[in-house]
Amino acid sequence: MTPGTPSGVALVGDQWILPGIATAHSHAFQRALRGRTQSVNASATRDFWSWRGLMYQLAGRLDPDSIYDLSRFAFAELARHGVTAVGEFHYVQHDPKGQPYADRIAMADAVVRAARDVGLRITLLRVLYQRGGFGRGLDEVQRRFSDPEVGHALADADAIAARFESDEGVRVGLAPHSVRAAGSEWLEAARDHCEARGWPLHMHVSEQPRENQECLAEHGLTPVGLLERLGLLSERFVAVHATHLRRSDVASLASSGATACICRTTERDLGDGAPDLSALVRAGVKLSVGVDSHAQSDPFEELRAVELDERTRLGQRQVALDGPALLEAGSTSGYACIGQALQGDRIWLDANDFSLGGDAGVDGIVFGANGRAVQRSRVLGADVVMDGRVPHQDAITAAFRSAVARLS
Amino acid sequence: MTPGTPSGVALVGDQWILPGIATAHSHAFQRALRGRTQSVNASATRDFWSWRGLMYQLAGRLDPDSIYDLSRFAFAELARHGVTAVGEFHYVQHDPKGQPYADRIAMADAVVRAARDVGLRITLLRVLYQRGGFGRGLDEVQRRFSDPEVGHALADADAIAARFESDEGVRVGLAPHSVRAAGSEWLEAARDHCEARGWPLHMHVSEQPRENQECLAEHGLTPVGLLERLGLLSERFVAVHATHLRRSDVASLASSGATACICRTTERDLGDGAPDLSALVRAGVKLSVGVDSHAQSDPFEELRAVELDERTRLGQRQVALDGPALLEAGSTSGYACIGQALQGDRIWLDANDFSLGGDAGVDGIVFGANGRAVQRSRVLGADVVMDGRVPHQDAITAAFRSAVARLS
Repeated sequence: MTPGTPSGVALVGDQWILPGIATAHSHAFQRALRGRTQSVNASATRDFWSWRGLMYQLAGRLDPDSIYDLSRFAFAELARHGVTAVGEFHYVQHDPKGQPYADRIAMADAVVRAARDVGLRITLLRVLYQRGGFGRGLDEVQRRFSDPEVGHALADADAIAARFESDEGVRVGLAPHSVRAAGSEWLEAARDHCEARGWPLHMHVSEQPRENQECLAEHGLTPVGLLERLGLLSERFVAVHATHLRRSDVASLASSGATACICRTTERDLGDGAPDLSALVRAGVKLSVGVDSHAQSDPFEELRAVELDERTRLGQRQVALDGPALLEAGSTSGYACIGQALQGDRIWLDANDFSLGGDAGVDGIVFGANGRAVQRSRVLGADVVMDGRVPHQDAITAAFRSAVARLS
Repeated sequence: MTPGTPSGVALVGDQWILPGIATAHSHAFQRALRGRTQSVNASATRDFWSWRGLMYQLAGRLDPDSIYDLSRFAFAELARHGVTAVGEFHYVQHDPKGQPYADRIAMADAVVRAARDVGLRITLLRVLYQRGGFGRGLDEVQRRFSDPEVGHALADADAIAARFESDEGVRVGLAPHSVRAAGSEWLEAARDHCEARGWPLHMHVSEQPRENQECLAEHGLTPVGLLERLGLLSERFVAVHATHLRRSDVASLASSGATACICRTTERDLGDGAPDLSALVRAGVKLSVGVDSHAQSDPFEELRAVELDERTRLGQRQVALDGPALLEAGSTSGYACIGQALQGDRIWLDANDFSLGGDAGVDGIVFGANGRAVQRSRVLGADVVMDGRVPHQDAITAAFRSAVARLS
């Protein structure tokens, strides 16, 4: 091994052994949108906000059975390509009229079971969704995401934790959706709840310039500035996207020990722009990655894209992170930011896979691997991928196709 | 099929049938560099020009046997992921001292055989390399690329065409390396030779700002401006990269009927920046794509990256090209710009592959497919990929590993 090789990495015979890889920000049901929002002529999808309209159409139709079928397929695809743990930012809670299901946590329960049936670790990040935006009420679909009082949301999160208490692969956290969708009182309630339980606290932060503008107009502060003033930033805080930050925002994230979760495959699809990675790295902000909308589901592409898009932004090579540093973001840092223990979770890659072509080292894996090089993975001591296949792959795909047809 | 579906696309049972896909710009031997030029601490590789130094080390050691082994693996990897035709921009011609081999075209011969042994169509684009740069002589390695007189290079190209005349899968063209490496007389000779034979004429154009600056200093013209004045632009001309163009350059390419060959996976790796795709599309410039340095070898990633990187550049969605338009660039336009006939070349994808997840249409394929979804391909009436495998895959990989070890 060369110096700088992350711990847990070894070449044994013709197999690379790597630590497990976490995708720390996922909306699994959005997998059903892949390939369905791309047409140039669909004028309704020309920016992030109109893409969100298509996503809302789908979210409005989900029920516990269909969110299970979509999520299980999405998790199986991730597992097949080397993901071993997922942070699920879960926001569709209630029935289509916004009323709680008889089992109040039926939707979260379905998503957790989908991940655990595939064999992945999952951290269910229960979303807090108060309002449609700064000074805006809820629209029809958003009522499914929301609760009349923040206490209901916190109680549901506790109920999820209690139901899966005996399953070491399940963790719970809170996710106030964004400064757009959660006001100060809700944010403070989330802060206290996570503090008391040692839970991770995730939020979408500065994904779009419009969010910054509206936050400045309401509070005179950037989203990160507001979160700092409210005391939300800590080592358990994860700023998802962190695309449009000021220098002072970067310094605040760094000094608090928070993590930035970069989601390049989705950000690239949605035209979000690219973060100033060099500034984040220079300041020492911890990094993880997320599959987000499941526009693509290969953790190696997810990792390398963080560095590659910074090269495009600056017109230089190797500006911030090499293969070992990126792998560390996906494994140690990714697991930590969703409150999971990496322990013995491992993946095995065929060194003779076309995408690797022999012993190309950690740089070769991170910058070159196709996730199909993964031959095996183990999570919590159990096999998840075996001989390059996820068990019941055909049945999982058939159930996904059937759910997509029902929802269309 | 929805309107706008490219001809040759069909869903039959659980298989998508697509036209063949061309990668119009390749340096196959550079496949050996994947994963070996990424380290942040290797200060020697911080930009395009120092990356070129590492590539020259490798180029300096090649011989006909090793370029065959490296190229055959690179072509097999492309074939496995859906590529059916390749434009090989071939520049290592002579022995390490710059002397012609006993068989003057031994190196080109090896590269052509490598492609044909895998079953791909290949257009051998014989490079013309006169000098090290504007006002610079040849360095030691560059002597392998060069010829004392342009006539020698043209004669070699004719010899390659003659040797493979009976093979419908082989075509020949010329590739003056760039305005840096070929002066006006050589460019005019290439123009006349291609005109007389109906051959494609490829050049690296405006990949790096420095090339533009030096060309302006020498000629008072941009690279495209110079090529226009010298009469090189035509429907047979391919401007590779076309990254840093002025508005007048775009107009010149469009009015001449030339093609721009975008190589995003490599350009993203090398920190080249991104082209103004919207301007190219608005002006009506024909587009194709190229794998270039083989940093990654998935034609679907190569195609979608053209649009995705434009979204990042502009901070918008769907700014220029949808799935059908991108597939057209890879198939019809890609084949045409390397002088090959698409005819019955086809690839078959498993619609139930994890990356497709059922019938997601051409947008789903182009924006979502992992090349491993390719189950079968046929080129010139013969099978190239069967049951998701290239014949002799293990032997091809072993020979590649052995060649890499010899060259290191």
